[in-house]
Amino acid sequence: TEDRRRAEYDHRRCRVVINVSGLKLETQPETLARFPNTLLGDPVRRQQYYDAERREYFFDRHRPSAEAILAFYQTGGKLHRPSEVPLDVFTDELRFFQLGDDVIEKYREKEGFSVASSQLSLNRDGCFGKLWLFLELPGSSVWAKLYAVLCVCFILLSISSLCLETLPGFSERAQNPEVEFTTEFFWIETVCVAWFTLEVVLRFVACPSKKDYFRSVLNVFDILAIVPYFITVSVVLASKGETSGLYRKASLTLRLMRLVRVLRIFKLSRYSEGLKMMGSTLAGSGSDIGMLLVFMVILVILFASAIYFVEQLQPEDSESHFSSIPDAFWWAIVTMVTLGYGDTYPQTGAGKFVGSLCALAGILTISLPVPVIVTQFDRLYNQRMEKDWEERTKKNVQGTEEVD
Amino acid sequence: TEDRRRAEYDHRRCRVVINVSGLKLETQPETLARFPNTLLGDPVRRQQYYDAERREYFFDRHRPSAEAILAFYQTGGKLHRPSEVPLDVFTDELRFFQLGDDVIEKYREKEGFSVASSQLSLNRDGCFGKLWLFLELPGSSVWAKLYAVLCVCFILLSISSLCLETLPGFSERAQNPEVEFTTEFFWIETVCVAWFTLEVVLRFVACPSKKDYFRSVLNVFDILAIVPYFITVSVVLASKGETSGLYRKASLTLRLMRLVRVLRIFKLSRYSEGLKMMGSTLAGSGSDIGMLLVFMVILVILFASAIYFVEQLQPEDSESHFSSIPDAFWWAIVTMVTLGYGDTYPQTGAGKFVGSLCALAGILTISLPVPVIVTQFDRLYNQRMEKDWEERTKKNVQGTEEVD
Amino acid sequence: TEDRRRAEYDHRRCRVVINVSGLKLETQPETLARFPNTLLGDPVRRQQYYDAERREYFFDRHRPSAEAILAFYQTGGKLHRPSEVPLDVFTDELRFFQLGDDVIEKYREKEGFSVASSQLSLNRDGCFGKLWLFLELPGSSVWAKLYAVLCVCFILLSISSLCLETLPGFSERAQNPEVEFTTEFFWIETVCVAWFTLEVVLRFVACPSKKDYFRSVLNVFDILAIVPYFITVSVVLASKGETSGLYRKASLTLRLMRLVRVLRIFKLSRYSEGLKMMGSTLAGSGSDIGMLLVFMVILVILFASAIYFVEQLQPEDSESHFSSIPDAFWWAIVTMVTLGYGDTYPQTGAGKFVGSLCALAGILTISLPVPVIVTQFDRLYNQRMEKDWEERTKKNVQGTEEVD
Amino acid sequence: TEDRRRAEYDHRRCRVVINVSGLKLETQPETLARFPNTLLGDPVRRQQYYDAERREYFFDRHRPSAEAILAFYQTGGKLHRPSEVPLDVFTDELRFFQLGDDVIEKYREKEGFSVASSQLSLNRDGCFGKLWLFLELPGSSVWAKLYAVLCVCFILLSISSLCLETLPGFSERAQNPEVEFTTEFFWIETVCVAWFTLEVVLRFVACPSKKDYFRSVLNVFDILAIVPYFITVSVVLASKGETSGLYRKASLTLRLMRLVRVLRIFKLSRYSEGLKMMGSTLAGSGSDIGMLLVFMVILVILFASAIYFVEQLQPEDSESHFSSIPDAFWWAIVTMVTLGYGDTYPQTGAGKFVGSLCALAGILTISLPVPVIVTQFDRLYNQRMEKDWEERTKKNVQGTEEVD
Ligand SMILES: [K+]
Ligand SMILES: [K+]
Repeated sequence: TEDRRRAEYDHRRCRVVINVSGLKLETQPETLARFPNTLLGDPVRRQQYYDAERREYFFDRHRPSAEAILAFYQTGGKLHRPSEVPLDVFTDELRFFQLGDDVIEKYREKEGFSVASSQLSLNRDGCFGKLWLFLELPGSSVWAKLYAVLCVCFILLSISSLCLETLPGFSERAQNPEVEFTTEFFWIETVCVAWFTLEVVLRFVACPSKKDYFRSVLNVFDILAIVPYFITVSVVLASKGETSGLYRKASLTLRLMRLVRVLRIFKLSRYSEGLKMMGSTLAGSGSDIGMLLVFMVILVILFASAIYFVEQLQPEDSESHFSSIPDAFWWAIVTMVTLGYGDTYPQTGAGKFVGSLCALAGILTISLPVPVIVTQFDRLYNQRMEKDWEERTKKNVQGTEEVD
Repeated sequence: TEDRRRAEYDHRRCRVVINVSGLKLETQPETLARFPNTLLGDPVRRQQYYDAERREYFFDRHRPSAEAILAFYQTGGKLHRPSEVPLDVFTDELRFFQLGDDVIEKYREKEGFSVASSQLSLNRDGCFGKLWLFLELPGSSVWAKLYAVLCVCFILLSISSLCLETLPGFSERAQNPEVEFTTEFFWIETVCVAWFTLEVVLRFVACPSKKDYFRSVLNVFDILAIVPYFITVSVVLASKGETSGLYRKASLTLRLMRLVRVLRIFKLSRYSEGLKMMGSTLAGSGSDIGMLLVFMVILVILFASAIYFVEQLQPEDSESHFSSIPDAFWWAIVTMVTLGYGDTYPQTGAGKFVGSLCALAGILTISLPVPVIVTQFDRLYNQRMEKDWEERTKKNVQGTEEVD
Repeated sequence: TEDRRRAEYDHRRCRVVINVSGLKLETQPETLARFPNTLLGDPVRRQQYYDAERREYFFDRHRPSAEAILAFYQTGGKLHRPSEVPLDVFTDELRFFQLGDDVIEKYREKEGFSVASSQLSLNRDGCFGKLWLFLELPGSSVWAKLYAVLCVCFILLSISSLCLETLPGFSERAQNPEVEFTTEFFWIETVCVAWFTLEVVLRFVACPSKKDYFRSVLNVFDILAIVPYFITVSVVLASKGETSGLYRKASLTLRLMRLVRVLRIFKLSRYSEGLKMMGSTLAGSGSDIGMLLVFMVILVILFASAIYFVEQLQPEDSESHFSSIPDAFWWAIVTMVTLGYGDTYPQTGAGKFVGSLCALAGILTISLPVPVIVTQFDRLYNQRMEKDWEERTKKNVQGTEEVD
Repeated sequence: TEDRRRAEYDHRRCRVVINVSGLKLETQPETLARFPNTLLGDPVRRQQYYDAERREYFFDRHRPSAEAILAFYQTGGKLHRPSEVPLDVFTDELRFFQLGDDVIEKYREKEGFSVASSQLSLNRDGCFGKLWLFLELPGSSVWAKLYAVLCVCFILLSISSLCLETLPGFSERAQNPEVEFTTEFFWIETVCVAWFTLEVVLRFVACPSKKDYFRSVLNVFDILAIVPYFITVSVVLASKGETSGLYRKASLTLRLMRLVRVLRIFKLSRYSEGLKMMGSTLAGSGSDIGMLLVFMVILVILFASAIYFVEQLQPEDSESHFSSIPDAFWWAIVTMVTLGYGDTYPQTGAGKFVGSLCALAGILTISLPVPVIVTQFDRLYNQRMEKDWEERTKKNVQGTEEVD
């Protein structure tokens, strides 16, 4: 190894000086040669920046970004933007030094930029392509915008009808299966479902890849929005001729179908940037929320058991609010999230002590993973802000690149 | 393009060295020439800092700010203060390097300084100007201060009277329209409204631009503070002669007028820096609060529907607390903000499960946009601190500039 | 001014190069001469670091701190520690470069170090000085520690007795003024007050400055701890001979005295670092807490008025929970802090809407100033951590200074 | 001392220049000699990087880390990673400059890496070593994984049985000691305890150090999981022959044993990274939680006393909810954590004022130490993320080291 070290040392004498606006970085040619497809790594490309007189490569570029660019070569491909350098300036430098599209893309992903927008670069020509554009990009034309507004209206109409239907006056009538088909709510629902079905069919036809169609959560919600109607109608029609035996048996199914209908509110997220961010946040912090839930479940079992055993020691005349441990779960949850409905509460001194610990444990437990989730949301939020800003200033940046 | 690159290279040999307290920045004359009206961009102005012996421009200025100044030229006008550099030191450097008032103003705006204070630079001479000064700047004279104190007293008096009026003993008497004009509360209200009306008239007269008058939210609150009185008095007077038919018809209007009267509490924000900050925070985070409300509405509809359908599955003997979905909205909100009044709560196991999810969803939903709003408030808060500090140290800074 | 500039330029040629571990700072002698009592500002003192060969001053010191030291001279006395540099390392550099005790002290104050400890440097000799040391510094001797433990015990005993006295069995007896002097609680109280009185006398005697004695909040709590006893005993003795007329008249006073007795719990803060921090935090964020309270009061008035007027529109059969606006204050507070006792709550749709807004407004209002206060607490907390760490490593640092 | 200073100055001329990728650090040989076992401190080892032509040591290493490496020598061993440098890059540099394993280990500890993993380097050969590996590292083999899954199943089964046992139908039967041995719950418990006992025995046998066995909290929970069973069975068996006198006397013990059984839920933390983090967080913020509890206790006593005295001033017809100060503790806690069950609440105006203050004080008190605890959790969380990342990229780093 001594020989190897000597050889290394000989190489070391041969140094490359890179002067970025006065900041002189020195390294060895081998280090730069690790990424031969980049501006600095390719001896031919970097030649044009060589200043033979001063024996250095000179770049009139952003100086605070320079160390990070060199560290990319030295650490074998790790990119770490200094906190002082704004995101867009750093991306410009990465592009200037030609680190490669895949490196830049990976880096942008690390900074929290989703790469989903690449889907938009699919073939947009032809009849289906135009339809797809019409359906997916409300900003692409006036008609697309109008269509989007109509969709939102139908969603709101359908949700409103679902809610109002349960008002005492209406719900009594609706409970009766004979008249169910004649209420105004049935007709509203039918029109809405017709529209939603049309939408599903159009989207499915227009979708460039039928496989991807079912992978998108939004499309699943589209389908969930229309399925309940068809099941309900089938059951009611089937039970028409007979006595109402089948109808009663299917009662739970029908009730579930009504609940599923509410999920169509998530169809709105197709039209709201905020809801998409919310969804991405939840998807991105799935493991943290899972962790929070596991913590909660363990503490709920612990405190529910404790309160159950402790509250049984009550004086004879009063009765414990906690008839069993599973019954005490609800109390433990309500206490941990500091809801405190007041339907059940400890009555003994020891129970009150357990209750106090339960509330404090709940506050701590909930406050621990929340910052992790909030950070995720903040990153998405700032990304959106950045994107807005980028679009507004795109021309400006291109102009600057021309000058360089 | 090869030719162009060669030309660029030739230019590149010609470098400008800028030495800021030992930090040697190197760039090309072209880069500096992008902003010819600045100290560095103007060859004549920068000449006086030229050190012919060392062939560099030497500035005995703040070294950590220097890279950001150069980056301003290289990135085509982007200013990014390094986190190490305090705001006032950086502003001093911007002024020294003569980046221009508009750049500095824009930069200060980016840092969260409002530019509203420019309004103060309007013509303050003449009778109206002095009146305007008297009304808007309580610190301008002793009389202005006394006037402001009087205004606050009248606001507090009027709010107190409004609250006390509803105490059982008083409110019974006040309900009777015949005696309404004879109660002490009516006289207090009359005096207060007289004062407020005078204030409105004075401010309107003194306001340099009549258009701007109605744009200010504070002035709108001024008007809202007096309108209810005149409407109420008109209605009562009109219904005096007749039977009380009109009075009864206008009952809702009168009630609304009473509610509008409470809004005069916002008149206080003219005299409190803290309330103004609160208002600016809310105005500046309008879109975030809107996003929060949309999240809340969607989750409320979702959980209200879920709890309604789930709670209907109760055993026969007990009755669901949720008579309809709209009725369950209230429960969903009360649960999501962890209020938990206890007037309605789930009674079935499935309902309790839905309730637990609802509370957790609420906690997460509310905690997501709150940091964004808090950050906005913090920025305004620090800006106020900075402004206080700046005013206290203004002389000191000017002294330093003399030395430089 | 042109002449002045030329003169300045001539000066400029004469540069001082300061090499801190390879970081070459260049400045002018005039800049350094602004603070002639410092190591760099005094030509004689800095001479010993001059390297005539390289024509520079060389310091083998902490390199990341160097720019901040130079900026101190350039900005006319502003010190800003770079976030990368730990607090103790930076303080060492300040000491090495002899910026002066007052500058270092001011800087430490800015970083959140209180200067209260200077009080400890008072004359500790003589009999009173030793007594003062014994009372104020439990760590100074074993007897001082034992004394402190005894004090804490008496406080806890006295608080426990105060709480237990109100338990149903005891309180009935205690209500009777005749037996009040014979209960065990009276004797416990008497012993405790005797001890507390002794403590007050000793502290007052030992206090080097009698003026300062009454300024300290802790001493005020000491006095508040004993005053109620003497007042109560006087009243009871005075009313002994007479009929119980006087006793009844003084009933409210006696009740207040009992409440004041609870304040002696704050005497504990003399013995707990955490409680002192809590107190300092509250004292340091007084204006923020005031701002929070003003926000709360305004929103409480607003929402209480709104709920009162809105809830009066109820159907005839049910009655509003809000009999007047002042009565609704309690509801508004309970809703804003998301307590939600459930004793009063809105029953109409409009009322529920107002209630939802009230809860959201409350959450936002409370969350705005809390981070400001939390930051204050964090600074104190880190300061304590730092102080602990400093004391543990003091020897180490001194050793290092020897080497330099 | 003048002589000493002169001597120092003479030394000072002799400077070492360390060039890290163009960043030229200058120091004195003595400074480097403080740590003679490091790469820079050992003149022989550093020789191979010497560039005789330029008279400097050249390292083609990470430039932003270089100042921190030099500061290590200058400050006598303090290591402070610049925030710009990622943790793994900095650790690589520390290894390259051979600062020593103990320094690196200490540094990693400071960054929040636990050193527990060192335990894994114990002798793993032999029969016991393999058993230990099988029990402690579920990832070591398929059978170990299966065993871990079985353990988790038994824990869940045992907890479920504990909870279900208390359901009304079952619990009545279980109350009767005669039938206790015949219920299905008894048999499930017996099987689970048998498994847990086997686990305890195996772990104890396999543990390399019997002393350490009892130090681990997890092992204590293992033992707590089985002890109640044996005590309960003993008591029931002992009371079999006699009349149920003994059984009744031991009733409280048996009840406590049931409560202790719930603690076996913490056995799960052996299998969940998240629960271990939670545990470490709580262990690491013990003093902060203690501080929070002391604050709470003091405020609870204060507000409970206040509400007790204040609420006694009620009009005759209604009765105070607070019968004594200890009774009011519960209200104070419930109010401070904003639970607000509504079982007790103030009814007088003064009481409502005290209640409002109590809620605000509670919110502030709880929000103060929570960020400190959250920070601790965040550090552990990021450490886990970093560890995951490190394991995935280990090969990559080793490859890079080869090249250097
Ligand atoms: K609550
Ligand atoms: K509640």
